[in-house]
Amino acid sequence: YEACEKLEKNGVKFQKKPDEGRMKGLAFALDPDGYWVEIVRREKLGWKEYYNLSQTMLRVKDGPASVEFYTKHLGMTLLRKMDFPQWKFSLYFLASLTPGELEECLPLDPENKHVDGLNPELPNTLTKIAWNQCLELTWNHGTEKDPDFKVHDGNAQPQGFGHIGFIVDNLQESCDKMEAEGVLFKKRPQDGNMRGIAFAYDPNGYWVELVDRKATFSGICSNY
Amino acid sequence: YEACEKLEKNGVKFQKKPDEGRMKGLAFALDPDGYWVEIVRREKLGWKEYYNLSQTMLRVKDGPASVEFYTKHLGMTLLRKMDFPQWKFSLYFLASLTPGELEECLPLDPENKHVDGLNPELPNTLTKIAWNQCLELTWNHGTEKDPDFKVHDGNAQPQGFGHIGFIVDNLQESCDKMEAEGVLFKKRPQDGNMRGIAFAYDPNGYWVELVDRKATFSGICSNY
Repeated sequence: YEACEKLEKNGVKFQKKPDEGRMKGLAFALDPDGYWVEIVRREKLGWKEYYNLSQTMLRVKDGPASVEFYTKHLGMTLLRKMDFPQWKFSLYFLASLTPGELEECLPLDPENKHVDGLNPELPNTLTKIAWNQCLELTWNHGTEKDPDFKVHDGNAQPQGFGHIGFIVDNLQESCDKMEAEGVLFKKRPQDGNMRGIAFAYDPNGYWVELVDRKATFSGICSNY
Repeated sequence: YEACEKLEKNGVKFQKKPDEGRMKGLAFALDPDGYWVEIVRREKLGWKEYYNLSQTMLRVKDGPASVEFYTKHLGMTLLRKMDFPQWKFSLYFLASLTPGELEECLPLDPENKHVDGLNPELPNTLTKIAWNQCLELTWNHGTEKDPDFKVHDGNAQPQGFGHIGFIVDNLQESCDKMEAEGVLFKKRPQDGNMRGIAFAYDPNGYWVELVDRKATFSGICSNY
């Protein structure tokens, strides 16, 4: 509703407003060519009247290198990049979106559409509405050049944060590909007695768990 | 498809299999009363041919106390609880699910349905199929009784993990309620110059960010 009000304020004409007719919560806007654009409540995107877990924030040594890792090797989309040169830090918001989901989201931010997708340099509502969890990376400029700077990966003493995990379709294949591309592994699928999972290191040394989508817990751990 | 094959193997009759008819990827199973049960590809639940970010693992000092915090104050659902008495640890998988989503998931695991919802004591596929990110908590039994045991919250030196964040509908109201219930805050919405966000402490001292769903970044930070 709020979105529709905003669109209307910005001059968008509606064939049907969300409260008109029998189908509440559903609207049809007219695009500049007169096509109807269906606007549904963002149930799919999770705009619920609820709390929802939405981000995990990790500090990183090298922002661009970390973004490259998560986009190139783990298929994440950079939703938003915010540079604060006056405070010498940058924030990156990344999410696991399929192309279809990204397409679904873009009409909500039509002005931020690049030829090749979302423009992470511009504000967008994706980070606010996306139900899919974001990975927020905080990079303090300059740490990448400091050979002594290391983040605490949470697994050294004292322990805390452990890892983030991704579900993958074909664990062995994904790991082989990542390894060929230079990613370091703490545990490859075939190492140890735990099948169906692997642990890679991200450029900061954070553990990244990879779990085969078909794995069951008893399939993972032979002694359980 | 895989799910339908499995159901069929388990003796479930189908009115329409996913590959029959004109609507591929959609099936109708017959429940024991002869009702049709529509089975759609779990697009909504995110079973995609993709990597997807699926978990954040944090170590906790006191498992049950941490689970209570995230379920009671932040509305999360305990999807799965796994105790390993032989190794003296437990794992908890929590997610932000709406009652509707939980209902949608339960038919996939009909035997694991409690009178009041999911039975986290039994294996279920939710943690594997849920697109919504899980919070995985790892509790080593006994640490809750050790006054010297503390997890590293990632914000003390050396820094690393920062926080997990939740989107909330009404920040002030949620924070007031949590505070009245004894939750400690690092930053309440009205503190400092950042509006629209707050930071609470979970029982382990991890920072939990709360972001008002209506907040924009310029609305959060007055000097930006």
